Amino acid sequence: MLMDDMGWGDLGVNGDPVRETPNLDAMSVEGMLLTDFYTANPLCSPSRAALLTGRLPIRNGFYTDNIDARNSYTPQEIVGGISQWEILLPELLQKSGYRNKIVGKWHLGHQSQYLPLRHGFHEFFGSTNCHFGPYDNINTPNIAFFRNDRMIGRYFENIKINKDKHISDLTQQYITEAIDFITNQSQPFFLYWTPDSLHAPTFRSSPYVGRSVKNSSYGDTLIEIDEGIGRILDTIKKNDSLANNTFVLFTSDNGAALVSTTDAGSNGPLLCGKQTTFEGGFREPAIAWWPSKIPPNTLSKQPATIMDLFRTIATITDSPMPEDREFDSYDLSPVLFKNQKIDTNIYYYRGNQLMAIRNGNYKAHFWTFTNPIEQYKTGINFCPGNFVKNITTHTLTDHTFRPKLFHMNRDPGERYPISEISKEYKSVFQKFSNLYKEHIDKTKPGKPQLNWCDRAVMHWIPPGCEAINMCLPVPQSKPYKCFWPH
Amino acid sequence: MLMDDMGWGDLGVNGDPVRETPNLDAMSVEGMLLTDFYTANPLCSPSRAALLTGRLPIRNGFYTDNIDARNSYTPQEIVGGISQWEILLPELLQKSGYRNKIVGKWHLGHQSQYLPLRHGFHEFFGSTNCHFGPYDNINTPNIAFFRNDRMIGRYFENIKINKDKHISDLTQQYITEAIDFITNQSQPFFLYWTPDSLHAPTFRSSPYVGRSVKNSSYGDTLIEIDEGIGRILDTIKKNDSLANNTFVLFTSDNGAALVSTTDAGSNGPLLCGKQTTFEGGFREPAIAWWPSKIPPNTLSKQPATIMDLFRTIATITDSPMPEDREFDSYDLSPVLFKNQKIDTNIYYYRGNQLMAIRNGNYKAHFWTFTNPIEQYKTGINFCPGNFVKNITTHTLTDHTFRPKLFHMNRDPGERYPISEISKEYKSVFQKFSNLYKEHIDKTKPGKPQLNWCDRAVMHWIPPGCEAINMCLPVPQSKPYKCFWPH
Repeated sequence: MLMDDMGWGDLGVNGDPVRETPNLDAMSVEGMLLTDFYTANPLCSPSRAALLTGRLPIRNGFYTDNIDARNSYTPQEIVGGISQWEILLPELLQKSGYRNKIVGKWHLGHQSQYLPLRHGFHEFFGSTNCHFGPYDNINTPNIAFFRNDRMIGRYFENIKINKDKHISDLTQQYITEAIDFITNQSQPFFLYWTPDSLHAPTFRSSPYVGRSVKNSSYGDTLIEIDEGIGRILDTIKKNDSLANNTFVLFTSDNGAALVSTTDAGSNGPLLCGKQTTFEGGFREPAIAWWPSKIPPNTLSKQPATIMDLFRTIATITDSPMPEDREFDSYDLSPVLFKNQKIDTNIYYYRGNQLMAIRNGNYKAHFWTFTNPIEQYKTGINFCPGNFVKNITTHTLTDHTFRPKLFHMNRDPGERYPISEISKEYKSVFQKFSNLYKEHIDKTKPGKPQLNWCDRAVMHWIPPGCEAINMCLPVPQSKPYKCFWPH
Repeated sequence: MLMDDMGWGDLGVNGDPVRETPNLDAMSVEGMLLTDFYTANPLCSPSRAALLTGRLPIRNGFYTDNIDARNSYTPQEIVGGISQWEILLPELLQKSGYRNKIVGKWHLGHQSQYLPLRHGFHEFFGSTNCHFGPYDNINTPNIAFFRNDRMIGRYFENIKINKDKHISDLTQQYITEAIDFITNQSQPFFLYWTPDSLHAPTFRSSPYVGRSVKNSSYGDTLIEIDEGIGRILDTIKKNDSLANNTFVLFTSDNGAALVSTTDAGSNGPLLCGKQTTFEGGFREPAIAWWPSKIPPNTLSKQPATIMDLFRTIATITDSPMPEDREFDSYDLSPVLFKNQKIDTNIYYYRGNQLMAIRNGNYKAHFWTFTNPIEQYKTGINFCPGNFVKNITTHTLTDHTFRPKLFHMNRDPGERYPISEISKEYKSVFQKFSNLYKEHIDKTKPGKPQLNWCDRAVMHWIPPGCEAINMCLPVPQSKPYKCFWPH
């Protein structure tokens, strides 16, 4: 269960002052709360590519090198998508006899060759893109919505979203799809449930309007998501065999999108948000649940990432790991099933740039960046309410000579860089410098997939458009280098 | 149980990422967690005066008007203290047959007339002041430590504190005093347990050194406090009669002292810290516990303050409220025992200045201030990591014409002022303006107690010094107006 832009601090058990996630809180009591669980990139597309490949975006190609350290994703102008060469988790599981379904946002490319059914999924209900729009279908087409490998409509036309009132019943459809899929399986299954209603502009179905004491669309949407997860877990719990044999991991693709102010979540005490390599952008709410295997009411401070799901699930399902490629994926079985600690390194990337590394209790920033000052001055702020001198920088700032060091337990909010002349700094400096050099030396970048854009590839003629008479005239192809502002 | 400088975000159940308060977390599961519980002033002395009198510092005199909106307290140069005219909670309870003891920091004045046994307490074990020092006993005397109305030694001499290593066994002594007092009571009792080890420089007893994954003295100290509270509650729980008849409230005197950086706690997602009227300075960790009366595992978002304890305890103990004075104290019985909501206003004062008001879900800042820019430039920062334009101001800024409005559930971190041209703003503007005017019109300030200082009143000759041969020569009296920098 991968949320969209949900923040670490949105979970009641992570201290949200209004505590409106009772089902997720209960899930954490039945399972394991992971406090130090990370994404692989502070933006949707690369985060999702990393989750499904078990590899850093720098390897699987979900980055740009049009310009250094810039966040990039898959808008409908994007030419690229997930490479045919990548092996996705559902492909691995398919070989082990699993039935795979994605419900929600795909975001790994929308051209035919990138669609989910080409990459190991048997079923797809959702969209390849965010619910942006509405568009005029002349300059920009409305985003296509899919059932399996065919479009069945477009956002704002067939999939209704009232953008002004933040209303849509799409999440309810996603909940129903999930429950139906789980209920009707006769074989092992992998469900990738990834609703995007928490991504601004957030939306909730009518019965949830005004439900939250937050008195915001985001708050209402969070309650709808939480209740949906409760219903899905209940479906699993009702069936003993499912309850004993289903591993559920709940997390988010990146930190709360603070740039959207009150139409966004909270990163609690963590610094900044989505788009940044500070903890607020990278650290995620995370709960692991498997009643027969994961000890209830446990908490793990194990630093781990969404990429670890790949190897962990390979282990759980006895699926052989591909041996022709490098992975950035640790087997979390000892963590989940025995609450043990394992040695991990967390690599914080932004685009093609390795920005920071966490090892043990320390995190070292080799580069810092929020967004360019010109952009900041126009009101685009990834760190509203936050300012840390020399850390929340508005230029891409090089600290490779003397990385900025933080203790992640003493100072998870990254307020107090450890003095460069302290013993503590000296005791770990060399280790981090070595980790940085080693990682860069050993990591062979994959071909960047997010460099090229072209208005001709937009959702003019998605597969299946003829059958429902929704094809649109395609403009002339004019590829251009995508512009990535942050 | 009143902590010193503990922050809202330090509780595991309030989302501290390392969760090292298992006893307090368990206490909240056995009782009620209060998420919107406030102090009356963001500094020790006035907060404590408000707690014990049920009245705002502007009424009970614990403020200065040497200069507007300045935080003031009771250093050992202070001439003033708690007024003889004030009626303290232990005085009220004494009349109802209670035995009263304070263990820990008093902070309501150290001259004879201000000592706890003159104001309703039967027993005192602790100090009148913070554990600052060591001093040379020539220019400045070391702080006296008391048993009842006599000094029994001085900090750093008889009460050992290793300041460099942050070690002292004082908290253990406070735990033992509390347990002995509770165990040996044959009559109803009021214990005011207020250890100050979480106030920088923090200290913990030797067995706790290195215990915290925070790897800091603050972290270790928090664990020691948490375990101490666990032991005190166990003492109560072991005895059925006590367990059924004891009301325990746990909270803190003000927000985490972020100015002390890593030797301080966390205010979680809240803005700024101690000394400020932002949520990080004013909102406190709070748990109410009474197994037979308070429903277990409940959460209340009731806005309330430490002053409410006065009327609440008067109700619980059937003690008549004094009728010759104004109180700022609501009876929380319906909240605690029935989880009902009551209408309250929270007044955020800084010195003599009403800075902000909370009513329902909204908070309006009529004035904003962190600390003077000259001071800020020297490194004194009450808001490390935080910056909100026009809100975290470095001059005392007047917004009385257009108060800065925040929604406390949607935006507890005070990042996003509600637009002054919005319907939402207009719908509550008049109410807040009226509340502000009414409060100022109706509130008659008491005589300020914290205006005058004099080196002659320092701890040269505390009561009892002769008996233990610890009197020091008293310099000539030279009263001067105290300087309050923030």
